[in-house]
Amino acid sequence: MFESAELGHEIDKDRYETEVPELRTALLAAQYEVVKKQAFSVVILIAGVDGGGKGDTLNTLNEWMDPRHLQTNAIRPVNEGLEGRPPMWQFWRALPKKGGLAVFVGSWYTAPLLRRVYRETTTAELDQEIDDILRFERMLIDEGTLVLKFWLHLTKAQQRKRFKKLEKDARTAWRVGPTDWKHLAMYKKFQSTAQHLLRSTSTAAAPWLIVEGTDERYRNLTVGTAVLTALRALLDGRPEGRVLRAAPVEAAPRTFVPVDGKTVLDALELDHPITKDEYQDELARLQGRLNMATRHKRFEKRSVVAVFEGADAGGKGGAIRRVTQALDARKYDVIPIAAPSDEDKARPYLWRFWRQVPQRGRIAIFDRSWYGRVLVERVEELCRVSGWARAYGEINDFEEQLIDHGIIVVKFWLQISKDEQLRRFEERQQVPYKQHKITDEDWRNRDKWDAYHDAVCEMIDRTSTEAAPWTLIGANNKYHARLAVLRGMVESIEAAL
Amino acid sequence: MFESAELGHEIDKDRYETEVPELRTALLAAQYEVVKKQAFSVVILIAGVDGGGKGDTLNTLNEWMDPRHLQTNAIRPVNEGLEGRPPMWQFWRALPKKGGLAVFVGSWYTAPLLRRVYRETTTAELDQEIDDILRFERMLIDEGTLVLKFWLHLTKAQQRKRFKKLEKDARTAWRVGPTDWKHLAMYKKFQSTAQHLLRSTSTAAAPWLIVEGTDERYRNLTVGTAVLTALRALLDGRPEGRVLRAAPVEAAPRTFVPVDGKTVLDALELDHPITKDEYQDELARLQGRLNMATRHKRFEKRSVVAVFEGADAGGKGGAIRRVTQALDARKYDVIPIAAPSDEDKARPYLWRFWRQVPQRGRIAIFDRSWYGRVLVERVEELCRVSGWARAYGEINDFEEQLIDHGIIVVKFWLQISKDEQLRRFEERQQVPYKQHKITDEDWRNRDKWDAYHDAVCEMIDRTSTEAAPWTLIGANNKYHARLAVLRGMVESIEAAL
Repeated sequence: MFESAELGHEIDKDRYETEVPELRTALLAAQYEVVKKQAFSVVILIAGVDGGGKGDTLNTLNEWMDPRHLQTNAIRPVNEGLEGRPPMWQFWRALPKKGGLAVFVGSWYTAPLLRRVYRETTTAELDQEIDDILRFERMLIDEGTLVLKFWLHLTKAQQRKRFKKLEKDARTAWRVGPTDWKHLAMYKKFQSTAQHLLRSTSTAAAPWLIVEGTDERYRNLTVGTAVLTALRALLDGRPEGRVLRAAPVEAAPRTFVPVDGKTVLDALELDHPITKDEYQDELARLQGRLNMATRHKRFEKRSVVAVFEGADAGGKGGAIRRVTQALDARKYDVIPIAAPSDEDKARPYLWRFWRQVPQRGRIAIFDRSWYGRVLVERVEELCRVSGWARAYGEINDFEEQLIDHGIIVVKFWLQISKDEQLRRFEERQQVPYKQHKITDEDWRNRDKWDAYHDAVCEMIDRTSTEAAPWTLIGANNKYHARLAVLRGMVESIEAAL
Repeated sequence: MFESAELGHEIDKDRYETEVPELRTALLAAQYEVVKKQAFSVVILIAGVDGGGKGDTLNTLNEWMDPRHLQTNAIRPVNEGLEGRPPMWQFWRALPKKGGLAVFVGSWYTAPLLRRVYRETTTAELDQEIDDILRFERMLIDEGTLVLKFWLHLTKAQQRKRFKKLEKDARTAWRVGPTDWKHLAMYKKFQSTAQHLLRSTSTAAAPWLIVEGTDERYRNLTVGTAVLTALRALLDGRPEGRVLRAAPVEAAPRTFVPVDGKTVLDALELDHPITKDEYQDELARLQGRLNMATRHKRFEKRSVVAVFEGADAGGKGGAIRRVTQALDARKYDVIPIAAPSDEDKARPYLWRFWRQVPQRGRIAIFDRSWYGRVLVERVEELCRVSGWARAYGEINDFEEQLIDHGIIVVKFWLQISKDEQLRRFEERQQVPYKQHKITDEDWRNRDKWDAYHDAVCEMIDRTSTEAAPWTLIGANNKYHARLAVLRGMVESIEAAL
């Protein structure tokens, strides 16, 4: 889920200096309107990795807005002054009143995260704490509070670099202590716990916005713009405003477009030149490994769910064939997913996929999948907004259940460029035996390239979990794509056995 | 929360035989309409204690409705035939399609309950399973399924009696096995786990209906009527119907009125004759014990939140004075709760009560409390339906946090009869020094006696938790009421030290 926040987002100085004055003016105006109207209160959480710029972001907000109406709470997880009262007491006390804004650096997320990372709690206990958080935030939202949550993200390398830079400068060296270095060494634990925490608490009414913390200008502009958008939406009573308050069934979830416009699909390298010889060598080797892995004794107790999604003409079919070539035909099913039948439509959306969950020792290969809900059904408006908006969570739940019960879940997204797609479409039209593969629908889908692009990016952000990450494959070169798929399959299965 | 299902509900034979034919006709008609319209599916869960009549209820539903359109699923927790698939697979498979009805005896609740009772899971793990259940049912409801959940309750004595009766008869003796007797011995564990499970999963869209299982006629009539009401509401598109589907913000939660009209307040004995001498002896003794308990060394690390609620003129003030007489004046605060100030109203509802959470070693006595939300604010329509409807959960969360952090929570409801209230009102008007205690508002409230009655019953059902149960006191005799309050305080504190 951090994919979109590891793209090296940047805003250059010129653009920053042009845009900031305008943003500040608008933020101030919005803030005064909040203060004057006294219709709702605003709670802003700034959380994230150490060195990600929490303090700087707080300072920026204080600089850009009127600090007299911006209450700052830096609550440490040590629970000082509680005198026997429950920990939430300190947050209740600090809640702003209607017309007030409060920024929390250190919030109700801090202690649950730290306790789990330090193994003072089990995952089950963390989930209990998450429940408490969800109910608390639900209450805030029901009471008309706008809750904005920012998570500042750094990769481990970036975090190390940042600490070193701070240490080098005598004026900032004090900001890096032994705990910071210790936490850096525990980076993986922090990230995987944070991922679970963020995903579980990213609700429709109070989603997390994950912000790459490296470039200060990008970070400030992102946070500032998001705060402004949310305030304006609520002040102007636009539908997105209501999303923030009460999550009505029919409102589309907020989709954050990065201020520098860089998405995870844009950042994907699509071309990977490879010779036919290299391909054939490697293909044979990987197919052999896949065959061995699925004949392993321990595989009898496991099963595989493999999801193939991708742009039209992205090469799903060819890739699937290279996988099945390596498998015992009695062991796998290829399940092509088309539009749901009437029988399917009469039942909850995931019903037809649950029916196809493989029993142990088997491999289910889905040629398109339950992700249709958040791709074609979303873009073509085949289901209501509420239908696809809640599908992310339902899909995560579904895959989590599969994984918890020992099923290996692999998910491939095959991406080609718009030009390559055109080339393939035209080729299909010209080659007689390929003509059946191209329909009017393909051309219509192509017209909606951008809408699909947005849907795919959101799908990746919201369903690429640690246990079932998306493997994104640049597939302009079919050979590369097929090898990447095989490699993904083989490595996932080998790792699980 | 089982208070209302331990009142000895009964329906006599005549009434039963008069009402059943009509109910059956209406149920069948509703069922055919569901089948014909194919607009939604219906899932009915029948759960509860062994011997509570799950099988009989299932048979009755099959008898009263058309069994060809009523799919029955008796899923055992042994998870047969899963072959490595997640346990939920068996329930997904059994989901009815639109226009279909399915009854589950043995459901997604069975295994989590048993695992926890047998200590195979921790409470935190149970809470994780509860989360999964909540998300699953949320999905069902979002997909247009009507989810009806019945819990058949018996006291331990009733359960034993039932087993003995079954064993006596050769034709039914097989229905009682060693596991049943073993579970009877574990009654308390089962009840406390069930209580937590039911409370956590009693959502606005799919609440549990707890049914006293002793009287077969009462049980059948209650379940049949509830199924009919829910079906009709959804078929006729009445607001309550929507509650079942999607819980809109403004719909009132379903309040179940027992088919025999007997409520927990009606069942309360209000008169307890006691002589003044007896009273004074016992008062002195209890006050002494209370004083000792609060001076105990271990009390320094604890604190008390005492809630006093009751009918107008129920004697709260007098009872509170008898408590404070026993306490060191430096140790307690009496906090009278009036209508919220503007300052209070600008913040989430519970904010003003959180502020008053006592630090360790202290006693906070609330003369009226946060329960105003679900009493006066509900009845007088001072807040929106959504406001008080969600308050039950918020209040339970609040009290749970207090208790988890070692605070002793006691809650008293002082109930007097309508006649006794009139007598006291008139006395207050006649006695000069009592005149300030009676206002026009009291008389207005008295006019709404029945609305308050319903609100109180629902409050007790929904907020009388194992950790913070309501102590219901019949208070027609002031002496008795004061002693009962003191006894409640003393025993709770002594038990906690």
